[in-house]
Amino acid sequence: MRETYHSQLDQVSDELVEMTRLVGSAMNRATQSLLDADLALAESVIAGDEAIDAIASKVEADCFQVSARQQPVATDLRIIVAALRISASLERMGDLAEHIAKAARMRYPSSAVPVQLRPTFQAMGAVAQNVVAKTGSVIATKDVSLAADIARTDEEMDRLHKELFSTVLAPSWDFGVEAAVDVTLLSRYYERFADHAVTIAKRVVYVATGEPYATVDPEAIVENLS
Amino acid sequence: MRETYHSQLDQVSDELVEMTRLVGSAMNRATQSLLDADLALAESVIAGDEAIDAIASKVEADCFQVSARQQPVATDLRIIVAALRISASLERMGDLAEHIAKAARMRYPSSAVPVQLRPTFQAMGAVAQNVVAKTGSVIATKDVSLAADIARTDEEMDRLHKELFSTVLAPSWDFGVEAAVDVTLLSRYYERFADHAVTIAKRVVYVATGEPYATVDPEAIVENLS
Repeated sequence: MRETYHSQLDQVSDELVEMTRLVGSAMNRATQSLLDADLALAESVIAGDEAIDAIASKVEADCFQVSARQQPVATDLRIIVAALRISASLERMGDLAEHIAKAARMRYPSSAVPVQLRPTFQAMGAVAQNVVAKTGSVIATKDVSLAADIARTDEEMDRLHKELFSTVLAPSWDFGVEAAVDVTLLSRYYERFADHAVTIAKRVVYVATGEPYATVDPEAIVENLS
Repeated sequence: MRETYHSQLDQVSDELVEMTRLVGSAMNRATQSLLDADLALAESVIAGDEAIDAIASKVEADCFQVSARQQPVATDLRIIVAALRISASLERMGDLAEHIAKAARMRYPSSAVPVQLRPTFQAMGAVAQNVVAKTGSVIATKDVSLAADIARTDEEMDRLHKELFSTVLAPSWDFGVEAAVDVTLLSRYYERFADHAVTIAKRVVYVATGEPYATVDPEAIVENLS
Protein backbone atom coordinates (compact mmCIF):
# COMPACT_ATOMS: atom_id res chain seq x y z
CA MET A 1 0.00 0.00 0.00
CA ARG A 2 2.75 2.37 1.11
CA GLU A 3 4.70 1.41 -2.00
CA THR A 4 1.81 2.14 -4.39
CA TYR A 5 1.41 5.42 -2.59
CA HIS A 6 5.00 6.42 -3.19
CA SER A 7 4.86 5.32 -6.80
CA GLN A 8 1.85 7.63 -7.14
CA LEU A 9 3.92 10.52 -5.77
CA ASP A 10 6.64 9.57 -8.27
CA GLN A 11 4.05 9.73 -11.01
CA VAL A 12 3.09 13.26 -9.96
CA SER A 13 6.76 14.22 -10.07
CA ASP A 14 7.04 12.73 -13.58
CA GLU A 15 4.02 14.76 -14.66
CA LEU A 16 5.65 17.94 -13.38
CA VAL A 17 8.86 17.14 -15.27
CA GLU A 18 6.77 16.50 -18.39
CA MET A 19 5.17 19.95 -17.86
CA THR A 20 8.63 21.57 -17.81
CA ARG A 21 9.34 19.87 -21.16
CA LEU A 22 6.13 21.14 -22.73
CA VAL A 23 6.59 24.63 -21.26
CA GLY A 24 10.21 24.71 -22.49
CA SER A 25 9.14 23.69 -25.98
CA ALA A 26 6.33 26.29 -25.94
CA MET A 27 8.72 29.04 -24.86
CA ASN A 28 11.27 28.03 -27.47
CA ARG A 29 8.70 28.10 -30.27
CA ALA A 30 7.17 31.33 -28.93
CA THR A 31 10.56 33.07 -29.06
CA GLN A 32 11.21 31.73 -32.55
CA SER A 33 7.76 32.82 -33.76
CA LEU A 34 8.43 36.27 -32.32
CA LEU A 35 11.84 36.66 -33.96
CA ASP A 36 10.82 35.18 -37.32
CA ALA A 37 7.24 36.53 -37.40
CA ASP A 38 6.26 32.89 -38.00
CA LEU A 39 2.48 32.68 -37.75
CA ALA A 40 2.19 28.88 -37.94
CA LEU A 41 4.67 28.47 -35.11
CA ALA A 42 2.83 31.07 -33.01
CA GLU A 43 -0.44 29.23 -33.62
CA SER A 44 1.15 25.94 -32.54
CA VAL A 45 2.12 27.49 -29.19
CA ILE A 46 -1.37 28.93 -28.69
CA ALA A 47 -3.05 25.62 -29.56
CA GLY A 48 -0.59 23.67 -27.41
CA ASP A 49 -1.39 25.51 -24.18
CA GLU A 50 -4.39 23.24 -23.61
CA ALA A 51 -2.11 20.22 -23.24
CA ILE A 52 -0.17 22.01 -20.49
CA ASP A 53 -3.40 22.96 -18.70
CA ALA A 54 -4.57 19.35 -19.00
CA ILE A 55 -1.48 18.00 -17.20
CA ALA A 56 -1.93 20.67 -14.51
CA SER A 57 -5.48 19.41 -13.94
CA LYS A 58 -4.20 15.82 -13.88
CA VAL A 59 -1.58 16.71 -11.26
CA GLU A 60 -4.30 18.24 -9.12
CA ALA A 61 -6.59 15.20 -9.50
CA ASP A 62 -3.71 12.81 -8.73
CA CYS A 63 -2.79 14.79 -5.62
CA PHE A 64 -6.35 14.54 -4.34
CA GLN A 65 -6.52 10.84 -5.08
CA VAL A 66 -3.23 10.18 -3.34
CA SER A 67 -4.40 12.13 -0.26
CA ALA A 68 -7.78 10.45 -0.14
CA ARG A 69 -6.47 6.89 -0.52
CA GLN A 70 -3.73 7.11 2.05
CA GLN A 71 -3.81 9.81 4.71
CA PRO A 72 -0.54 11.61 4.15
CA VAL A 73 1.90 12.29 6.97
CA ALA A 74 3.46 15.74 7.36
CA THR A 75 6.33 15.24 4.88
CA ASP A 76 4.10 13.73 2.24
CA LEU A 77 1.59 16.50 2.71
CA ARG A 78 4.37 18.99 2.09
CA ILE A 79 5.24 17.14 -1.14
CA ILE A 80 1.61 17.23 -2.25
CA VAL A 81 1.19 20.93 -1.50
CA ALA A 82 4.48 21.66 -3.26
CA ALA A 83 3.33 19.68 -6.31
CA LEU A 84 0.12 21.71 -6.49
CA ARG A 85 2.01 25.00 -6.27
CA ILE A 86 4.66 23.90 -8.78
CA SER A 87 2.00 22.82 -11.24
CA ALA A 88 0.28 26.24 -10.85
CA SER A 89 3.59 27.99 -11.60
CA LEU A 90 4.27 25.80 -14.64
CA GLU A 91 0.77 26.39 -15.94
CA ARG A 92 1.40 30.12 -15.61
CA MET A 93 4.74 29.79 -17.43
CA GLY A 94 2.84 28.13 -20.27
CA ASP A 95 0.44 31.09 -20.29
CA LEU A 96 3.37 33.49 -20.57
CA ALA A 97 4.74 31.57 -23.59
CA GLU A 98 1.25 31.80 -25.06
CA HIS A 99 1.16 35.59 -24.47
CA ILE A 100 4.43 35.90 -26.41
CA ALA A 101 3.04 33.80 -29.27
CA LYS A 102 -0.11 35.95 -29.31
CA ALA A 103 2.01 39.10 -29.58
CA ALA A 104 3.83 37.52 -32.54
CA ARG A 105 0.47 36.69 -34.13
CA MET A 106 -0.96 40.17 -33.48
CA ARG A 107 1.89 41.90 -35.35
CA TYR A 108 2.16 39.34 -38.17
CA PRO A 109 3.37 39.74 -40.94
CA SER A 110 5.56 42.32 -39.19
CA SER A 111 7.75 41.35 -36.27
CA ALA A 112 6.78 42.66 -32.82
CA VAL A 113 10.52 43.07 -32.13
CA PRO A 114 12.49 45.92 -33.74
CA VAL A 115 15.74 44.75 -35.27
CA GLN A 116 17.75 46.62 -32.63
CA LEU A 117 16.26 44.43 -29.89
CA ARG A 118 16.52 41.07 -31.63
CA PRO A 119 19.74 40.10 -29.81
CA THR A 120 18.15 40.93 -26.44
CA PHE A 121 15.08 38.77 -27.13
CA GLN A 122 17.28 36.02 -28.53
CA ALA A 123 19.23 36.09 -25.27
CA MET A 124 16.03 36.19 -23.19
CA GLY A 125 14.73 33.17 -25.10
CA ALA A 126 17.97 31.29 -24.45
CA VAL A 127 17.90 32.15 -20.74
CA ALA A 128 14.24 31.07 -20.55
CA GLN A 129 15.15 27.72 -22.16
CA ASN A 130 18.02 27.29 -19.77
CA VAL A 131 15.99 28.14 -16.67
CA VAL A 132 13.12 25.80 -17.52
CA ALA A 133 15.51 22.92 -18.29
CA LYS A 134 17.11 23.44 -14.87
CA THR A 135 13.65 23.56 -13.33
CA GLY A 136 12.93 20.14 -14.80
CA SER A 137 16.20 18.84 -13.34
CA VAL A 138 15.55 20.23 -9.87
CA ILE A 139 12.08 18.62 -9.82
CA ALA A 140 13.42 15.29 -11.07
CA THR A 141 16.51 15.09 -8.89
CA LYS A 142 15.53 17.19 -5.84
CA ASP A 143 19.14 18.41 -5.99
CA VAL A 144 18.91 21.65 -4.01
CA SER A 145 22.25 22.92 -5.34
CA LEU A 146 20.42 23.56 -8.63
CA ALA A 147 18.24 26.14 -6.86
CA ALA A 148 21.14 28.57 -6.53
CA ASP A 149 21.92 27.98 -10.20
CA ILE A 150 18.32 28.84 -11.12
CA ALA A 151 18.48 32.00 -9.00
CA ARG A 152 21.62 33.07 -10.87
CA THR A 153 19.95 32.39 -14.23
CA ASP A 154 17.03 34.55 -13.08
CA GLU A 155 19.48 37.36 -12.33
CA GLU A 156 20.73 37.12 -15.91
CA MET A 157 17.12 37.52 -17.08
CA ASP A 158 16.66 40.57 -14.84
CA ARG A 159 19.82 42.06 -16.33
CA LEU A 160 18.46 41.60 -19.86
CA HIS A 161 15.10 43.07 -18.79
CA LYS A 162 16.87 46.20 -17.52
CA GLU A 163 19.10 46.39 -20.60
CA LEU A 164 15.98 46.38 -22.76
CA PHE A 165 14.57 49.37 -20.91
CA SER A 166 17.83 51.26 -21.43
CA THR A 167 17.49 50.67 -25.16
CA VAL A 168 13.82 51.65 -25.31
CA LEU A 169 14.34 54.82 -23.26
CA ALA A 170 17.51 55.96 -25.05
CA PRO A 171 17.26 59.02 -27.35
CA SER A 172 18.29 56.71 -30.20
CA TRP A 173 15.00 54.75 -29.94
CA ASP A 174 13.46 55.21 -33.39
CA PHE A 175 10.65 52.67 -33.31
CA GLY A 176 7.91 54.72 -31.72
CA VAL A 177 5.43 54.15 -28.94
CA GLU A 178 3.69 51.03 -30.24
CA ALA A 179 6.92 49.06 -30.45
CA ALA A 180 7.92 50.37 -27.00
CA VAL A 181 4.64 49.12 -25.53
CA ASP A 182 5.02 45.75 -27.26
CA VAL A 183 8.56 45.10 -26.10
CA THR A 184 7.80 46.32 -22.56
CA LEU A 185 5.11 43.69 -22.16
CA LEU A 186 7.12 41.00 -23.94
CA SER A 187 10.13 41.61 -21.74
CA ARG A 188 7.91 41.48 -18.68
CA TYR A 189 6.62 38.03 -19.77
CA TYR A 190 10.18 36.67 -20.01
CA GLU A 191 11.07 38.17 -16.66
CA ARG A 192 8.01 36.65 -14.94
CA PHE A 193 8.76 33.30 -16.62
CA ALA A 194 12.15 33.16 -14.89
CA ASP A 195 10.62 34.38 -11.59
CA HIS A 196 8.29 31.38 -11.59
CA ALA A 197 11.27 29.06 -12.06
CA VAL A 198 12.82 30.56 -8.93
CA THR A 199 9.55 30.06 -7.03
CA ILE A 200 9.50 26.40 -8.09
CA ALA A 201 13.13 25.89 -7.08
CA LYS A 202 12.37 27.39 -3.66
CA ARG A 203 9.45 25.00 -3.25
CA VAL A 204 11.68 22.02 -4.02
CA VAL A 205 14.23 23.29 -1.50
CA TYR A 206 11.47 23.67 1.07
CA VAL A 207 10.37 20.06 0.62
CA ALA A 208 13.96 18.80 0.72
CA THR A 209 15.08 20.78 3.77
CA GLY A 210 11.88 21.63 5.68
CA GLU A 211 12.94 25.29 5.82
CA PRO A 212 9.95 27.61 5.50
CA TYR A 213 9.48 28.93 2.01
CA ALA A 214 9.60 32.67 2.67
CA THR A 215 12.97 32.64 4.36
CA VAL A 216 14.70 30.30 1.94
CA ASP A 217 17.81 31.68 0.30
CA PRO A 218 19.06 29.03 -2.14
CA GLU A 219 22.61 30.43 -2.00
CA ALA A 220 22.67 30.12 1.78
CA ILE A 221 21.33 26.59 1.67
CA VAL A 222 23.95 25.49 -0.79
CA GLU A 223 26.60 27.08 1.41
CA ASN A 224 25.20 25.26 4.43
CA LEU A 225 25.30 21.96 2.62
CA SER A 226 28.75 22.32 1.14
CA MET B 1 -11.84 17.43 18.41
CA ARG B 2 -13.82 17.74 15.20
CA GLU B 3 -15.13 21.09 16.46
CA THR B 4 -11.67 22.52 17.20
CA TYR B 5 -10.68 21.38 13.78
CA HIS B 6 -13.46 23.30 12.11
CA SER B 7 -12.79 26.37 14.19
CA GLN B 8 -9.20 26.17 12.90
CA LEU B 9 -10.48 26.14 9.33
CA ASP B 10 -12.65 29.14 10.22
CA GLN B 11 -9.56 30.88 11.51
CA VAL B 12 -7.79 30.30 8.19
CA SER B 13 -10.81 31.76 6.42
CA ASP B 14 -10.68 34.82 8.71
CA GLU B 15 -6.99 35.25 7.92
CA LEU B 16 -7.74 35.20 4.20
CA VAL B 17 -10.48 37.83 4.67
CA GLU B 18 -7.99 39.92 6.66
CA MET B 19 -5.55 39.58 3.74
CA THR B 20 -8.18 40.98 1.36
CA ARG B 21 -8.56 43.98 3.69
CA LEU B 22 -4.82 44.64 3.76
CA VAL B 23 -4.48 44.12 0.02
CA GLY B 24 -7.45 46.44 -0.61
CA SER B 25 -5.92 49.12 1.57
CA ALA B 26 -2.52 48.68 -0.13
CA MET B 27 -4.08 48.99 -3.58
CA ASN B 28 -6.07 52.06 -2.54
CA ARG B 29 -3.00 53.82 -1.17
CA ALA B 30 -0.90 52.72 -4.14
CA THR B 31 -3.39 54.28 -6.56
CA GLN B 32 -3.54 57.45 -4.49
CA SER B 33 0.26 57.68 -4.28
CA LEU B 34 0.41 57.23 -8.04
CA LEU B 35 -2.16 59.94 -8.81
CA ASP B 36 -0.87 62.43 -6.23
CA ALA B 37 2.86 61.62 -6.55
CA ASP B 38 2.71 61.11 -2.77
CA LEU B 39 6.04 59.63 -1.70
CA ALA B 40 5.12 58.96 1.95
CA LEU B 41 2.01 57.07 0.89
CA ALA B 42 4.01 55.04 -1.64
CA GLU B 43 6.55 54.17 1.06
CA SER B 44 3.75 53.05 3.39
CA VAL B 45 2.53 50.58 0.76
CA ILE B 46 6.04 49.25 0.15
CA ALA B 47 6.73 48.86 3.88
CA GLY B 48 3.30 47.29 4.46
CA ASP B 49 3.81 44.40 2.05
CA GLU B 50 5.67 42.45 4.72
CA ALA B 51 2.52 42.26 6.84
CA ILE B 52 0.65 40.70 3.92
CA ASP B 53 3.45 38.19 3.34
CA ALA B 54 3.43 37.36 7.05
CA ILE B 55 -0.27 36.44 7.02
CA ALA B 56 0.33 34.33 3.90
CA SER B 57 3.02 32.41 5.80
CA LYS B 58 0.67 32.07 8.78
CA VAL B 59 -2.09 30.66 6.55
CA GLU B 60 0.37 28.10 5.23
CA ALA B 61 1.55 27.12 8.71
CA ASP B 62 -2.05 26.87 9.98
CA CYS B 63 -3.03 24.68 7.04
CA PHE B 64 -0.19 22.28 7.80
CA GLN B 65 -1.06 22.19 11.47
CA VAL B 66 -4.70 21.51 10.76
CA SER B 67 -3.76 18.70 8.36
CA ALA B 68 -1.27 17.13 10.74
CA ARG B 69 -3.52 17.20 13.83
CA GLN B 70 -6.58 15.73 12.20
CA GLN B 71 -6.28 13.81 8.97
CA PRO B 72 -8.53 15.72 6.62
CA VAL B 73 -11.24 14.03 4.58
CA ALA B 74 -11.66 14.85 0.89
CA THR B 75 -13.82 17.97 1.33
CA ASP B 76 -11.62 19.42 4.05
CA LEU B 77 -8.55 18.72 1.98
CA ARG B 78 -10.12 20.67 -0.84
CA ILE B 79 -10.72 23.57 1.57
CA ILE B 80 -7.09 23.47 2.71
CA VAL B 81 -5.69 23.36 -0.83
CA ALA B 82 -8.02 26.20 -1.83
CA ALA B 83 -6.85 28.26 1.16
CA LEU B 84 -3.21 27.79 0.14
CA ARG B 85 -3.94 28.83 -3.44
CA ILE B 86 -6.08 31.80 -2.38
CA SER B 87 -3.38 32.99 -0.02
CA ALA B 88 -0.81 32.75 -2.84
CA SER B 89 -3.07 34.86 -5.08
CA LEU B 90 -3.63 37.47 -2.37
CA GLU B 91 0.08 37.66 -1.67
CA ARG B 92 0.63 38.28 -5.37
CA MET B 93 -2.08 40.98 -5.38
CA GLY B 94 -0.17 42.67 -2.56
CA ASP B 95 3.00 42.48 -4.69
CA LEU B 96 1.17 44.18 -7.56
CA ALA B 97 0.06 47.04 -5.27
CA GLU B 98 3.69 47.31 -4.19
CA HIS B 99 4.84 47.47 -7.84
CA ILE B 100 2.45 50.39 -8.39
CA ALA B 101 3.76 52.18 -5.29
CA LYS B 102 7.34 51.61 -6.49
CA ALA B 103 6.50 53.17 -9.85
CA ALA B 104 5.07 56.20 -8.00
CA ARG B 105 8.27 56.41 -5.93
CA MET B 106 10.54 56.02 -8.95
CA ARG B 107 8.95 59.00 -10.76
CA TYR B 108 8.59 61.21 -7.66
CA PRO B 109 8.31 64.25 -7.53
CA SER B 110 6.72 63.85 -10.97
CA SER B 111 3.68 61.67 -11.46
CA ALA B 112 4.11 58.43 -13.42
CA VAL B 113 0.68 59.08 -14.93
CA PRO B 114 0.22 61.78 -17.61
CA VAL B 115 -2.74 64.02 -16.91
CA GLN B 116 -4.64 62.61 -19.88
CA LEU B 117 -4.70 59.15 -18.27
CA ARG B 118 -5.58 60.18 -14.72
CA PRO B 119 -9.30 59.35 -15.17
CA THR B 120 -8.40 55.89 -16.48
CA PHE B 121 -6.14 55.10 -13.51
CA GLN B 122 -8.70 56.57 -11.13
CA ALA B 123 -11.27 54.19 -12.62
CA MET B 124 -8.84 51.25 -12.49
CA GLY B 125 -8.16 52.00 -8.83
CA ALA B 126 -11.89 52.08 -8.09
CA VAL B 127 -12.46 48.80 -9.93
CA ALA B 128 -9.53 47.22 -8.06
CA GLN B 129 -11.05 48.35 -4.73
CA ASN B 130 -14.40 46.97 -5.75
CA VAL B 131 -13.05 43.61 -6.90
CA VAL B 132 -10.99 43.01 -3.77
CA ALA B 133 -13.91 43.92 -1.50
CA LYS B 134 -16.06 41.39 -3.34
CA THR B 135 -13.23 38.86 -3.04
CA GLY B 136 -13.33 39.32 0.74
CA SER B 137 -17.10 38.77 0.69
CA VAL B 138 -16.92 35.62 -1.42
CA ILE B 139 -14.29 34.13 0.92
CA ALA B 140 -16.28 35.06 4.04
CA THR B 141 -19.72 34.03 2.80
CA LYS B 142 -18.90 31.28 0.24
CA ASP B 143 -21.75 32.85 -1.74
CA VAL B 144 -20.99 31.57 -5.24
CA SER B 145 -23.30 34.11 -6.89
CA LEU B 146 -20.60 36.71 -6.09
CA ALA B 147 -18.21 34.86 -8.43
CA ALA B 148 -20.15 36.00 -11.49
CA ASP B 149 -20.13 39.52 -10.11
CA ILE B 150 -16.34 39.38 -9.73
CA ALA B 151 -15.98 38.08 -13.29
CA ARG B 152 -18.03 41.06 -14.53
CA THR B 153 -15.89 43.48 -12.53
CA ASP B 154 -12.82 41.90 -14.12
CA GLU B 155 -14.33 42.55 -17.55
CA GLU B 156 -14.64 46.22 -16.62
CA MET B 157 -10.92 46.21 -15.75
CA ASP B 158 -10.08 44.58 -19.09
CA ARG B 159 -12.09 47.28 -20.84
CA LEU B 160 -10.11 50.03 -19.06
CA HIS B 161 -6.85 48.23 -19.89
CA LYS B 162 -7.77 48.25 -23.59
CA GLU B 163 -8.96 51.86 -23.42
CA LEU B 164 -5.59 52.85 -22.03
CA PHE B 165 -3.78 51.25 -24.97
CA SER B 166 -6.02 53.16 -27.39
CA THR B 167 -4.96 56.39 -25.69
CA VAL B 168 -1.26 55.53 -25.65
CA LEU B 169 -1.22 54.41 -29.28
CA ALA B 170 -3.28 57.33 -30.63
CA PRO B 171 -1.48 59.97 -32.73
CA SER B 172 -2.46 62.50 -30.04
CA TRP B 173 -0.15 60.79 -27.48
CA ASP B 174 2.27 63.59 -26.53
CA PHE B 175 3.99 62.09 -23.51
CA GLY B 176 6.75 60.13 -25.17
CA VAL B 177 8.12 56.64 -24.80
CA GLU B 178 9.01 56.66 -21.10
CA ALA B 179 5.48 57.54 -20.03
CA ALA B 180 4.14 54.93 -22.47
CA VAL B 181 6.35 52.25 -20.92
CA ASP B 182 5.32 53.32 -17.40
CA VAL B 183 1.59 53.26 -18.02
CA THR B 184 1.80 49.99 -19.97
CA LEU B 185 3.30 48.22 -16.97
CA LEU B 186 1.03 49.99 -14.48
CA SER B 187 -2.06 49.06 -16.44
CA ARG B 188 -0.85 45.47 -16.63
CA TYR B 189 -0.51 45.39 -12.82
CA TYR B 190 -4.14 46.50 -12.37
CA GLU B 191 -5.31 43.99 -14.93
CA ARG B 192 -3.45 41.10 -13.25
CA PHE B 193 -4.79 42.23 -9.86
CA ALA B 194 -8.36 41.70 -11.08
CA ASP B 195 -7.40 38.41 -12.77
CA HIS B 196 -6.25 37.06 -9.41
CA ALA B 197 -9.61 38.01 -7.88
CA VAL B 198 -11.32 35.89 -10.55
CA THR B 199 -8.98 32.97 -9.81
CA ILE B 200 -9.85 33.23 -6.11
CA ALA B 201 -13.58 33.37 -6.84
CA LYS B 202 -13.25 30.26 -9.01
CA ARG B 203 -11.46 28.46 -6.17
CA VAL B 204 -14.27 29.31 -3.76
CA VAL B 205 -16.81 28.06 -6.29
CA TYR B 206 -14.82 24.86 -6.68
CA VAL B 207 -14.88 24.21 -2.94
CA ALA B 208 -18.58 25.03 -2.70
CA THR B 209 -19.72 22.98 -5.68
CA GLY B 210 -17.03 20.33 -6.21
CA GLU B 211 -16.82 21.28 -9.88
CA PRO B 212 -13.25 21.03 -11.17
CA TYR B 213 -11.51 24.38 -11.31
CA ALA B 214 -10.54 24.51 -14.99
CA THR B 215 -14.07 24.02 -16.31
CA VAL B 216 -15.83 26.35 -13.89
CA ASP B 217 -17.78 29.16 -15.50
CA PRO B 218 -19.16 31.34 -12.69
CA GLU B 219 -21.99 32.61 -14.91
CA ALA B 220 -23.09 29.08 -15.71
CA ILE B 221 -23.00 28.07 -12.07
CA VAL B 222 -25.13 31.01 -11.04
CA GLU B 223 -27.56 30.13 -13.81
CA ASN B 224 -27.66 26.53 -12.63
CA LEU B 225 -28.37 27.62 -9.08
CA SER B 226 -31.05 30.18 -9.89
